[in-house]
Amino acid sequence: MTNQQYAEMWKDLGLNLEKHDVLLNALAKGYGDLFMTQKNRPAGMGYFDFVISEVHGLRIKELVDRKKAGKKIIGAFCLYVPEELVYAADATMVGLCGGADFSIPDAETVLPRNICPLVKSFFGFKVGATCPYFNSCDMVVGETTCDAKKKVYEVLADYTPTYVMEIPHKVDTEQSKALWLSEIKLFKQQMETLTGNVIEKDSLKEAIRLINEKKKAMKRVSDTRRASPTPISGLDALLVNQMSFYDDVNRFTLKTNELADELEKRNADGVGVGDPSKPRLMFSGCPMAIPNWKLHSIIESTGVPVVAEESCIGSRYFTDLVEPKGDSMDSLLEAIWDRYHNISCACFTPNDDRVTKVVDMAKEYNASGVVYNVLQYCHTYNIEAIKVDKALKKAGVPMLKVETDYGSEDVEQIRTRVEAFTEMLSPV
Amino acid sequence: MTNQQYAEMWKDLGLNLEKHDVLLNALAKGYGDLFMTQKNRPAGMGYFDFVISEVHGLRIKELVDRKKAGKKIIGAFCLYVPEELVYAADATMVGLCGGADFSIPDAETVLPRNICPLVKSFFGFKVGATCPYFNSCDMVVGETTCDAKKKVYEVLADYTPTYVMEIPHKVDTEQSKALWLSEIKLFKQQMETLTGNVIEKDSLKEAIRLINEKKKAMKRVSDTRRASPTPISGLDALLVNQMSFYDDVNRFTLKTNELADELEKRNADGVGVGDPSKPRLMFSGCPMAIPNWKLHSIIESTGVPVVAEESCIGSRYFTDLVEPKGDSMDSLLEAIWDRYHNISCACFTPNDDRVTKVVDMAKEYNASGVVYNVLQYCHTYNIEAIKVDKALKKAGVPMLKVETDYGSEDVEQIRTRVEAFTEMLSPV
Repeated sequence: MTNQQYAEMWKDLGLNLEKHDVLLNALAKGYGDLFMTQKNRPAGMGYFDFVISEVHGLRIKELVDRKKAGKKIIGAFCLYVPEELVYAADATMVGLCGGADFSIPDAETVLPRNICPLVKSFFGFKVGATCPYFNSCDMVVGETTCDAKKKVYEVLADYTPTYVMEIPHKVDTEQSKALWLSEIKLFKQQMETLTGNVIEKDSLKEAIRLINEKKKAMKRVSDTRRASPTPISGLDALLVNQMSFYDDVNRFTLKTNELADELEKRNADGVGVGDPSKPRLMFSGCPMAIPNWKLHSIIESTGVPVVAEESCIGSRYFTDLVEPKGDSMDSLLEAIWDRYHNISCACFTPNDDRVTKVVDMAKEYNASGVVYNVLQYCHTYNIEAIKVDKALKKAGVPMLKVETDYGSEDVEQIRTRVEAFTEMLSPV
Repeated sequence: MTNQQYAEMWKDLGLNLEKHDVLLNALAKGYGDLFMTQKNRPAGMGYFDFVISEVHGLRIKELVDRKKAGKKIIGAFCLYVPEELVYAADATMVGLCGGADFSIPDAETVLPRNICPLVKSFFGFKVGATCPYFNSCDMVVGETTCDAKKKVYEVLADYTPTYVMEIPHKVDTEQSKALWLSEIKLFKQQMETLTGNVIEKDSLKEAIRLINEKKKAMKRVSDTRRASPTPISGLDALLVNQMSFYDDVNRFTLKTNELADELEKRNADGVGVGDPSKPRLMFSGCPMAIPNWKLHSIIESTGVPVVAEESCIGSRYFTDLVEPKGDSMDSLLEAIWDRYHNISCACFTPNDDRVTKVVDMAKEYNASGVVYNVLQYCHTYNIEAIKVDKALKKAGVPMLKVETDYGSEDVEQIRTRVEAFTEMLSPV
């Protein structure tokens, strides 16, 4: 279908059509320039090219069709929202748009200027009515991970039904576990009330399996990037990670496994992208919501591949699986807690676990250096960079901290810094 | 005693004497310029003038003497640290320096530049060894109220013993209460271990009484400011609030009650400071650690009085008392929780309680307008300003939001904004 044919659907969703057209055109051009100009891409990326071309079209139509069939759509924004419970209630979870400079002027009509671009961007998409995912949602689920998100959800509640889960920030106490588990149970009730479906043990087990399979497929793709040459660009791998928050889960898992098959074959054949004599960079830090491809594209434009992402769009999402130790509902919910509380977001204190994970990952992926991404005004990742840098230094892995927003003003400056950084790195 | 005579003590505390001298001279000059030039001050402020002149001298000597007698000093920074448990363990709690631009360059050798000046300032005082309170402390107690403090405590732990309490951010659930209560109990144990003193019911009851008396005295002073003309300048009242975090509790309570007596008499006699035909402003928002007198001094330099502070240095500290419902240790600890969880810091979500309190206070103090203070990069108060502004507007009270740090570059700009703001206000 063409955009013109989708226009009716977008209008029904309450989008600002004129503005939305501007966004779509910019997205298509940006994608073409960055992705389609890459050389020697895996054939399996064809599917993801198609998905992105239909990201506001076909996929939204699927969501709208589900809504017409009485199903619910949940919008979320953070790994701590247990999607297993969403799917167990026969609802669908989608990521919210939040990676574009485009929507920030709309956000700044309400919010302060000096908060994280991701938060401003997602809020701006709602205020400006330019995100069909947002406008498809029956409920947005937030969390108390960081100050900016936590307080913006309160403001967002004036625009759309919003539910907030508390995430405790010290994870080593019994009471912290009790609070988190109780929040997971409250969220289960919330999903049951919203959908009218009781979450039974079997449907939750099936949802756990569904999401675990998705994560295993993503982990397979990630594992292939340990090879030299890396079989896929960082930019393409990033896109796969980003799409995991939007696409239909079963289809995404199938296509990601097909891509993994191809990448494993590439590795066996010694086929890859880029020059294996160059250093390899690992990305660590704040997440990159779609279409934030800024740092990856800058880094790879210098001829150096990104081989891993220690990020919520990346390893933090797919590394651990939900693995119940028993068959009761309590066991299933505890397994969800067990998995989720192991995701080392910088919101935790202390967070030595993340520091260790970054160092371990850099070694596992043979990274010559780490580019540490701080979204502007993100206090947690910014301050945690001090400890990460110290630990990486001790392990002999140099780190470059880049604090940036979604603007293009600093692109050349960042490119120069990345070039200077990689020049001093020896290939691993 | 003279500064020269204290030099030995400061040296023993590990202070950087040269730097500390520069600080003391700047402090004395700033205080003289701002406070001693005020007209018609209450005689009771003489005590506070003396305390500030000895804030790094006599008071520190008292702390050092206590340390020599085997007692412990706890440094803290936030109303959520239950000082009742500190005093019940026969330790002393002091505020940490955190209101001066002076220490920020030292902080920025380690921390990012774009975080709250209060956090940078207190950290810089430790790194630069210029705060005798910090260097007197046996332990610093932090909390998880905001991202910047939470993550900086982790870094601070490399410099000084640091203990962190978790403060849950949703306060309306059973589990949140359970977590908070358990954190209060853990803190009790922590104090017992540090001091070697078991906290008995009687000592805790006595400590609750001690702190309640202090707060009642402060509330008395605050209540007198509802009169027109106000019997005390905002600057002087702010100083009393600030000193409550440093001074000996019993002496402070005595002297604050004496001041309250005088102010009540002033009100009875119709004596006050400033021109009763002018508008009256209320202050709301981020706290002002000593010697942050910036906004109050700018506002009052325009001839308009500040009549109340909805802030942690202000009403949030002294409004509610710990009022046990029973006599058991559990009742006492629950009463502490009950009081503390009622302090409406912007870290909570949702935080409608604070919004209501701001509006109520503005009415109680006959404020013509509210100046809302955001310390630069403080996300929680900054974003919460949206809801506060809306509620005040509805109540017919105009609000001026001022986002500022500790620098002097924006003083004239803020003065112009305050003047323009008060010009449009009618006196109440």
